Amino acid sequence: MLNMFKPKTVAVIGASDAEGKIGHDVLKNLVGLFPGKIVPINTNAAEVMGLKAYPTVSACPDKVDLAIFCIPAKFVLEAIEDCGKSGVKSVVVISAGFKEVNHAGAEMEKEIAAACRKYNMELVGPNCLGIIDTHADLNGSFAKMMAITGDIAFMSQSGAIMTAMLDWADARNVGFSRVVSLGNKAGVNEKDCLEDFAEDPNTKVIAAYLEEIVDGPAFMEAAKIACKKKPIVLIKSGTTDAGSAAVSSHTGSIAGADQAYTSAFKQSGIIRAAALDEMMNYSLALSACPLPKGRNIAIITNAGGPGIMATDAVINNNMKMTKLTDANYQKLKDALPEAASAKNPIDVLGDAKPNRYALALDTALEDDNVDGIIFLVTPQSVTEVANTAQLVIDRFKAAKKPILCVFFGGTLMEPGEKMLQAAGIPNYTYPEAAIETMRALCDYADILATDFKKPESFKVDKEKVKALMKKQTDNGDFVLGLESIDILEAYGLPLVGNEEAATVDDAIKAAEKMGYPVVMKIVSPDITHKSDAGGIRLNLKNKDEIKDAYAKMMVDVKKHVPHAKIEGVQIQQMLIGGNEIIIGMIRDPTFGPLVMFGLGGIYVEILKDVSFGVAPLNRDEAEKLIRSIKTFKIFEGARGAQPVDINILIDAVLRVSQLVTDFPEIKEFEINPMKVMDDGKTAYAIDMRMML
Amino acid sequence: MLNMFKPKTVAVIGASDAEGKIGHDVLKNLVGLFPGKIVPINTNAAEVMGLKAYPTVSACPDKVDLAIFCIPAKFVLEAIEDCGKSGVKSVVVISAGFKEVNHAGAEMEKEIAAACRKYNMELVGPNCLGIIDTHADLNGSFAKMMAITGDIAFMSQSGAIMTAMLDWADARNVGFSRVVSLGNKAGVNEKDCLEDFAEDPNTKVIAAYLEEIVDGPAFMEAAKIACKKKPIVLIKSGTTDAGSAAVSSHTGSIAGADQAYTSAFKQSGIIRAAALDEMMNYSLALSACPLPKGRNIAIITNAGGPGIMATDAVINNNMKMTKLTDANYQKLKDALPEAASAKNPIDVLGDAKPNRYALALDTALEDDNVDGIIFLVTPQSVTEVANTAQLVIDRFKAAKKPILCVFFGGTLMEPGEKMLQAAGIPNYTYPEAAIETMRALCDYADILATDFKKPESFKVDKEKVKALMKKQTDNGDFVLGLESIDILEAYGLPLVGNEEAATVDDAIKAAEKMGYPVVMKIVSPDITHKSDAGGIRLNLKNKDEIKDAYAKMMVDVKKHVPHAKIEGVQIQQMLIGGNEIIIGMIRDPTFGPLVMFGLGGIYVEILKDVSFGVAPLNRDEAEKLIRSIKTFKIFEGARGAQPVDINILIDAVLRVSQLVTDFPEIKEFEINPMKVMDDGKTAYAIDMRMML
Repeated sequence: MLNMFKPKTVAVIGASDAEGKIGHDVLKNLVGLFPGKIVPINTNAAEVMGLKAYPTVSACPDKVDLAIFCIPAKFVLEAIEDCGKSGVKSVVVISAGFKEVNHAGAEMEKEIAAACRKYNMELVGPNCLGIIDTHADLNGSFAKMMAITGDIAFMSQSGAIMTAMLDWADARNVGFSRVVSLGNKAGVNEKDCLEDFAEDPNTKVIAAYLEEIVDGPAFMEAAKIACKKKPIVLIKSGTTDAGSAAVSSHTGSIAGADQAYTSAFKQSGIIRAAALDEMMNYSLALSACPLPKGRNIAIITNAGGPGIMATDAVINNNMKMTKLTDANYQKLKDALPEAASAKNPIDVLGDAKPNRYALALDTALEDDNVDGIIFLVTPQSVTEVANTAQLVIDRFKAAKKPILCVFFGGTLMEPGEKMLQAAGIPNYTYPEAAIETMRALCDYADILATDFKKPESFKVDKEKVKALMKKQTDNGDFVLGLESIDILEAYGLPLVGNEEAATVDDAIKAAEKMGYPVVMKIVSPDITHKSDAGGIRLNLKNKDEIKDAYAKMMVDVKKHVPHAKIEGVQIQQMLIGGNEIIIGMIRDPTFGPLVMFGLGGIYVEILKDVSFGVAPLNRDEAEKLIRSIKTFKIFEGARGAQPVDINILIDAVLRVSQLVTDFPEIKEFEINPMKVMDDGKTAYAIDMRMML
Repeated sequence: MLNMFKPKTVAVIGASDAEGKIGHDVLKNLVGLFPGKIVPINTNAAEVMGLKAYPTVSACPDKVDLAIFCIPAKFVLEAIEDCGKSGVKSVVVISAGFKEVNHAGAEMEKEIAAACRKYNMELVGPNCLGIIDTHADLNGSFAKMMAITGDIAFMSQSGAIMTAMLDWADARNVGFSRVVSLGNKAGVNEKDCLEDFAEDPNTKVIAAYLEEIVDGPAFMEAAKIACKKKPIVLIKSGTTDAGSAAVSSHTGSIAGADQAYTSAFKQSGIIRAAALDEMMNYSLALSACPLPKGRNIAIITNAGGPGIMATDAVINNNMKMTKLTDANYQKLKDALPEAASAKNPIDVLGDAKPNRYALALDTALEDDNVDGIIFLVTPQSVTEVANTAQLVIDRFKAAKKPILCVFFGGTLMEPGEKMLQAAGIPNYTYPEAAIETMRALCDYADILATDFKKPESFKVDKEKVKALMKKQTDNGDFVLGLESIDILEAYGLPLVGNEEAATVDDAIKAAEKMGYPVVMKIVSPDITHKSDAGGIRLNLKNKDEIKDAYAKMMVDVKKHVPHAKIEGVQIQQMLIGGNEIIIGMIRDPTFGPLVMFGLGGIYVEILKDVSFGVAPLNRDEAEKLIRSIKTFKIFEGARGAQPVDINILIDAVLRVSQLVTDFPEIKEFEINPMKVMDDGKTAYAIDMRMML
C-alpha cells in the first residue's frame, strides 16, 4: 500500500496566491476540502491563501507526510533533499522539464529518483497532474475539478486523459476512489498503483490508461494477484507503432509491436479495453453489478427492431440468447398481450407501461436459465420513462444478476437516464455498448475461475546448452543453426536423426543407424545455397543409392563452386508425411520471451495463423496457445487423418518456453520445421535458428 | 419520386379528439404545422380539433392527396376503396393487425395492397408509424416529436428505431429531410424510398434501418444509381439469425445468413453501419463535410495521450498518418513552443489557447498532403473551450476538406459541444468514433470513383446445358455430379480428361487419348465409397499398369462388395501438382445467386478462407473476389512457385456466374476441386455438384 493517500499534513511546494500558477491551483484544490493540515511552502511569502507559509519543508514545525511539488525543475532536487531530511513519506512532483524534454532533464530525473530512494520516499511523477483520493477528501492535483466519490481507481499515463475522464465522469455522475497521474514514472509506476488499488478498501475496480509498462514480468505477477481481488480494466495505447528493431525470423516478422501486450494481459487476468468509452463502461458495470454465472442472456424490450439488434450483438459477443424455463415462459405468455413475445427477446410491446416491464424483469431475475439481463426501452407514445427507470432502480441493488439498461433515444429518455445515473446504474444509449459490457462481466467471471498455475519444470541439461552456445560464440558466431541442434536435445525436444559424415562410408553408417530413407546434404563453409549447388539429395533408400548420390554430389558441387572446401555430408532421416509446425520466440523489450506456435510452411508465411504467449508458460497456457490457431482442426484428425496427441505439442512448447526463459541471452529462436508425424504420437525437430 | 411528400390536402382517417388515440396524435402533429388543408375523417363527429370533419374521404368536397389511416384493420379496405374512387394519390396505413399478427391479417394486407394497385395509389405500411417531410412541414406520423429540419433522409423498418432516432437526434440538434416508417411494406418498400430520397433536392444523405429487403436485385440496381448522387448509409439487422434451410454443399455451409447482404451492399455502393450510432455519425458527417481526396489524415491535439489513441485508430481504420509538407512543418516548428510537436499528430500542448489551434488548423487546411483533419481538444486548465469551438465554426463551411472534432470530456467541454452541434459540425466524445467516421467519408469517395460495369457475356452452349439437366431430372435425379460435368464444358470451363470405359481395352484407349498418367475409378451404382472398396488406383503410367490395376481392382471390389454391379471404370487424367480451388454458388432468397471462391481442401474446410459475391459479377468484381481471399498470395508465386495468370481464375468465376444466372433452377452449385496447374496458365475442373 502506498502512503501518499493517507497524509495528515500536506505541503505544497511552490504554493502561490497568483491565479493561473499550478502552485495556486493545487493549493486551492486542497483548501476547504482536505481535512488535515495544509502547509504552503514559498520562499518569499509569509502567508498564502490565508495560510501560514514556510520557506522550506524543514522550516515547518509540523511533520509533513506528503509534499506536492509545483516549482521549476531546477529547484526540485534541493527541495527533495530537504523533504527527505524532514521525514516526508511521499512526494508528488507535478513540475515538468525532465525526461520528456531533453537529456539534461533525464539526468535531473535520475537524481531526484535516487534522492527519493535514499530517503525511502514514494515519488509520483515528475511531469504529472497529481493524485486524488476522494475518500480522504484529498485533491493533490491541479485538475480543474475534484472527482466525484466512487469506487473506481484510475491511473493514467496521460494527464490529458485523466482530465478528460474526470470531466466525462463529472457529466455522468461516475465516481472514483483514487486517481493517479503517473507522469514520467521515475518512482511509483503502474505496478505500485495496481498493488495499492488492489488493497484499497474503497476501490472496487481498477482502471488504467497506459502507454508502456516499466517492468513487464513484475506487472504480470502483480496483476495475477490483483485480478483475483478486483477487476482490472486497462487501455494500452500505441498499438500500431510498429517496432523499429530489425527482425530476422518468422516469429519476429509476424509478432506486431502490440502482440506481447495482448498476450501478457490475457495471461494475467486483465480485461483490455480498446477505447476510453469501453474502459469506463466496463469499469462502471463491474463496480455496480454482480457477476453473471454464465453467458446466458435475456433481453427485455418494448420493440422488435432494437431486440433484433441486441440479439445480433449478444451472438457476436460470444454469449447466448437464453431460453426461459417452461414455467416462466408460460407465465409471461399468459400475462402479456397476445402480440407480445414471451420468448427471448421478451417483447413487452410499444404500449408497455411499467407494470409489464416489471413482470418481465422479475421473471428474468428469478429464472435460473438467465445469467444476465439487458433492459431495453425505446420512447413510444405511452412509455413512462421515469417510472420505468424507477422500477429498475427498485430492483437493481437486490438483484443477484447483472441488469444493464439501454434507454434508447435522447430528449425523451433523458429523465430516465438521469435517474439511472444518479442511482449508479449502468445505462447505454445503444444496445451494442450494453452487450459488449455484459461480455466484459462474463470475462471477469472467467478470470476469477482461472488458476494461474506455476509453469512446470522439465529435467534438462542446461550445462550442455551453455557449452554448445559457448562453442559458437567463441568462434564469433551469434547465429546458431542446424549445427547446434543438439541444444534442442538437451532440452528434451526430439530430433530428427541427423549426423555429419566425412566420408561415404561414414554416411552409410549414419544412415543405417537412423534408418532409411535419408536425405544427404553437402557440408561446406563456402556453400550457403546447398540446393542451387547440387548439394542436396532426397529419399535415398539404401546403401547403393547413398554411394551413387555421394559421388554425383561431389562432382556437381565442384562444378558449381569450384574452390569450395568440402567437409563431408550431413545425413538426415527423411520423414514421410506429417505436418510441419513452427515454434518460435522473440524477446520483447517489455515482457521478455514471447513464444509463437503455428503450422509451418504456407500457414505461417501466408496465413500467419499463429498464436503467441509470454514465457514461462504453464501447461494450460501452452494448450490454449496451441488450440487457438485456426488450423488446430488439422491436429484433431481432419480429412481422415490420425488425431494428434496434443501433449506432444504441449511438451514441445513448454520445453521451448523453459529454454528461452533459462537463457535470457537468446534474442530470437525458432524451431522450423518440427514435423508432427502421421501417427499423431511423435514429432521431430528438423531445423532450428537461434540468435544470441 | 413519391407523391406522398407533396400533398396539398391531407386526410386523417380515424381522426379523434380523444387523447391517447393514434388518430388524435396524428392530427395533432399536422395541425399548426402543415400549411396545406387538413381534413379529419370521422364517422361520428362533425368536427375534430376544431376542424370540419367528414364521415368519408369521398364525402369531403376537397380533393385529398394523402390519406393517413388510423382506424382498426378491419375497416381499412373499405376506406381504401373510398380513397381510390376519390382520386387520392397516397395512403399511409398506420393501423396494425395485418401480416404481423396472423394469416387472416396477411390476407387483408394482400387485399389492401391489391386495391391500392388498382387505383394506382402509393401505399405506406400497414403497421407503421407514418411519414415526415420537414421541408414540407408535414408530420404524418404519431411520433411524439417532429424531426428537426435537416438533410438526412431516413427510412426505418422498425417504428421503435424511428422514434428512438428522432429522440436521439432531437437531443443533438441533428435534422432530417424525410423520414419514412416502412411498416409491413405491402406497397412502398426500401427501393421506392431509396429512389425517392435520391431525387429529393432537400436530401443529402440517405440513411436506413432494414431487417430484410423485398427484392434484392432491384434494390441493388437502385442503389448503384442512387449512390452516385448521394451516400447511402444502411443498417441491416438480424445478421446472426442463422438460416434454417438445410444445405448440402461447402458453399452453403460456409455462407452465413448475412453473407449475401454483405456482398450485395459492397457491390452496390452502400456504406454499411454496424450500429445506430455509427449510422448517425456517418450520415451527419457525410451531409456536413466535403469528401477527402485521399486517406492521408492529420491530427491536431493539445495532449499526447489522445494523439496516440487517435493515431492507433487511423492506422486500424485503413488510413494513413500524413506527413506535412516541409514548408508547413517548418512553419509550425517555428511558431509553436519547443515542447510542441510540429509533426503529425500536431501537438499544440496543454496550454494552447485558440490562436495556437487556429495556426495548426489553418496549416493543415492548406497543406496538400492532408486529406482530412481530426481536431482534438481535451480540458486543460487554460483551455478556452468555447473560443476553440468558435475557431472551428469560423473555418468549417469554407473548408475544402473534412474536419471532424473530438471535444474530449464532459462537463467542461459541454459549451463547445453545444456550439458545434448548433452549427451542425460533427463532434465526437472519443477519438475512435471520429476516425471511424473519417473512414466512412473515404469509403464514399471510393464509391463515387467506382464504375459499376455491366457483366460481360461469354458465348456458351445453353441448349446443351438444358438438355443435360433434363436428362437427369427426367430420371428423377435433381443432384447432378460428375456424370453431368459436360455442363461445365458447355459454359467454356476447361475439364480434366475423363471418360468411362466398360472394358480394360476401352480404358487403355481412353488413357492414351488423354495422356498418362491416369487415375482409374470403379463405376458401380452399388459403391459409394470407392476408396474403401479398393475402387481407386492412382498414377497409372502405361498400358501394362492399367491392365494390372484393372485386374486387381475387379478382384478387390468383389471382395469388399460381393454383389456390386460393376459397369466399368472411369479413366481420369491425373493432374500432378497444382493448387485446388473451389467455385461454388448458393441461391440466396433475397439476392439470388451468391458465388463463392476459395482454395480447396483444407483451406475451405478448416480455414474457410473464401470470398463471396452476388452474381452476375462483372470482371472487376470477380477480380476483387479472387484477390480478397487471405491465401491469394499462393497465386502470386509464393514459395518459388510460378505466379498464376489471374485471368484464368477470373474467367472461371465469370463463367460460373453466367451459368448460375442463366439457370435460376440451379439451387446450389460447386466445382470442387478445380485444379490450377503449376504452369500458372491452365486450370481444369475435376468434379462438380449441382442441386436443382
